[in-house]
Amino acid sequence: MKPLLLTMGDAAGIGPEIIVKAFEAGRLDDAVVLGDVAVMRRAAALLGGRVTVQPVDGPVRSAAPGVLPVLPPPGLPSDVHDVPFGRVDARTGAAAAACITEAVRLVRSGEGRAIVTAPIHKEALSAAGVPFPGHTEMLQALSVDAGEGEPPPVRMMLANDELRTVLVTIHVSLRRAIDAVTFDAVLETVRIADRSLRAMGIARPRVAVAGLNPHAGEGGLFGEEEVRIIGPAIAAARADGIDASGPYAPDTVFMRARDVPGHPGEFDVVVAMVHDHGLIPVKYLGVEQGVNVTLGLPFVRTSPDHGTAFDLAGTGRADAASFVAAAKMARVLTPGP
Amino acid sequence: MKPLLLTMGDAAGIGPEIIVKAFEAGRLDDAVVLGDVAVMRRAAALLGGRVTVQPVDGPVRSAAPGVLPVLPPPGLPSDVHDVPFGRVDARTGAAAAACITEAVRLVRSGEGRAIVTAPIHKEALSAAGVPFPGHTEMLQALSVDAGEGEPPPVRMMLANDELRTVLVTIHVSLRRAIDAVTFDAVLETVRIADRSLRAMGIARPRVAVAGLNPHAGEGGLFGEEEVRIIGPAIAAARADGIDASGPYAPDTVFMRARDVPGHPGEFDVVVAMVHDHGLIPVKYLGVEQGVNVTLGLPFVRTSPDHGTAFDLAGTGRADAASFVAAAKMARVLTPGP
Repeated sequence: MKPLLLTMGDAAGIGPEIIVKAFEAGRLDDAVVLGDVAVMRRAAALLGGRVTVQPVDGPVRSAAPGVLPVLPPPGLPSDVHDVPFGRVDARTGAAAAACITEAVRLVRSGEGRAIVTAPIHKEALSAAGVPFPGHTEMLQALSVDAGEGEPPPVRMMLANDELRTVLVTIHVSLRRAIDAVTFDAVLETVRIADRSLRAMGIARPRVAVAGLNPHAGEGGLFGEEEVRIIGPAIAAARADGIDASGPYAPDTVFMRARDVPGHPGEFDVVVAMVHDHGLIPVKYLGVEQGVNVTLGLPFVRTSPDHGTAFDLAGTGRADAASFVAAAKMARVLTPGP
Repeated sequence: MKPLLLTMGDAAGIGPEIIVKAFEAGRLDDAVVLGDVAVMRRAAALLGGRVTVQPVDGPVRSAAPGVLPVLPPPGLPSDVHDVPFGRVDARTGAAAAACITEAVRLVRSGEGRAIVTAPIHKEALSAAGVPFPGHTEMLQALSVDAGEGEPPPVRMMLANDELRTVLVTIHVSLRRAIDAVTFDAVLETVRIADRSLRAMGIARPRVAVAGLNPHAGEGGLFGEEEVRIIGPAIAAARADGIDASGPYAPDTVFMRARDVPGHPGEFDVVVAMVHDHGLIPVKYLGVEQGVNVTLGLPFVRTSPDHGTAFDLAGTGRADAASFVAAAKMARVLTPGP
């Protein structure tokens, strides 16, 4: 099977060292790193030097235990490894963007299985003149060729072993998020969630749709979005053959969807209207296992549920669990021989 | 010590039977029920008749194992027990209100330790002409004598064994809740939370204040309530000597406050701006252990974190765990000899 494509993320953050840590633990044997060789060697050294970084010129898997293949993408600045840990720098921003660009090119041309991205830093990206605020927008733009049309609508899914949630709105104020809860946005989210879970091998995903207001509006008493917008969007999704239901009271739908031994989840995924309704329950038991999946792209992309952690970078203490979980999720989302 | 005062709640709901069940399990030996004798006898009978209901004329504890003291309040309709399970009826509404009224009179006159309320039904209350939409408003009004001034400001606390949260806003639409997040409302909530936790025996409560917006507004990028309202309210609370901190990102503050073996909570309580930010994590692991506490009243009142469950009433299958937890919490909140 083709290798997982890992992007090293911001070189001044914890990305390189969590990749080395996860590789050393035997959890990334099927992957190649899009990254800077010197940066990855610095990470291997600070973790004790037990991993050997091997430059490669194509997307290949590890050739031997302890040997991590690193593929430098075109356009990498030559002195990225000079940037100290924890520093915002145009060079690390440019390097991070170059890795992402090459990873998308490879996965779109069929040379990689899926992309797992280590964290990048918005300000470094901006310092490098990259015209995207973050991964999602960049990946959307890279998903279409120039003149090929609009980037595809995408949605963020957060998942751990017991809960999956897909968000209708994300990084806007709560007030603007409410305005962005439209019939089209809800229906599109339900469709993307359904399609993505089918791709994961769930034949008929049970999609729970959470309400926006307390008690899902209590029949219009605490807000009318459920009656006016969310309910009709669910009905439209059902008319399309999707097993969508709701709107459910936000405060109990996640508990009902939670899937653990002795408590089988009632739903396969919860569509949440706003960022924190969905993220509070996914993160409640610990962020270590949380994985971020961008749904709607023409390829699979997952990432850990944390940032660059500049304060930890270079100490070797960063926890690789979420990156390992992200790689595992990428494999689940790309079943094959 | 004075008895806990239990109100039977709506007689057509699960209140009477969960009280009998919890009593039979030996968890309410220190309590007296404000209720209708025939209704409580019906509940005892449907659970197998092992509990004897004994009418009493004052707030006394159980005289013997298996003997549940029931104190009928003034103004009880004579035929409440004729109302079938699951039916909205003016008589059960009037009876529920009479029990609450007498419980407050007793606790205010020093004849009871605290009040634990079984669930009531809004529509039954309304059918009986009771001018309050729920427990909270009724308890507030009964906390002051006529002409004595305004009812005290109160806040809802939801708690289980690992997390406590106090809400700035509750039963309004999310849009109106945002408007209700004012400097005064946040500061008052922090003060009530601090005062109540001190009364619980925590010398210097660590009060975490959650933001309203994703990432607590990310420095104004995703909303300005944190900068304009919540931050200044925290500063004012700190100037009062309260150990308040934040505003924290809503999606991780509950995880950080979660207190379990191996993961000591960083905070004693989280002040949440809106209903579902607070209730999603408290309910996520199951509603059985959740307890609702009304803070700010001149006495202690707790209740289970569920409703009348008309669909379950009369079957004997309702889970008494949350009521038991509510009684336990009432004892914790009224330490004494």
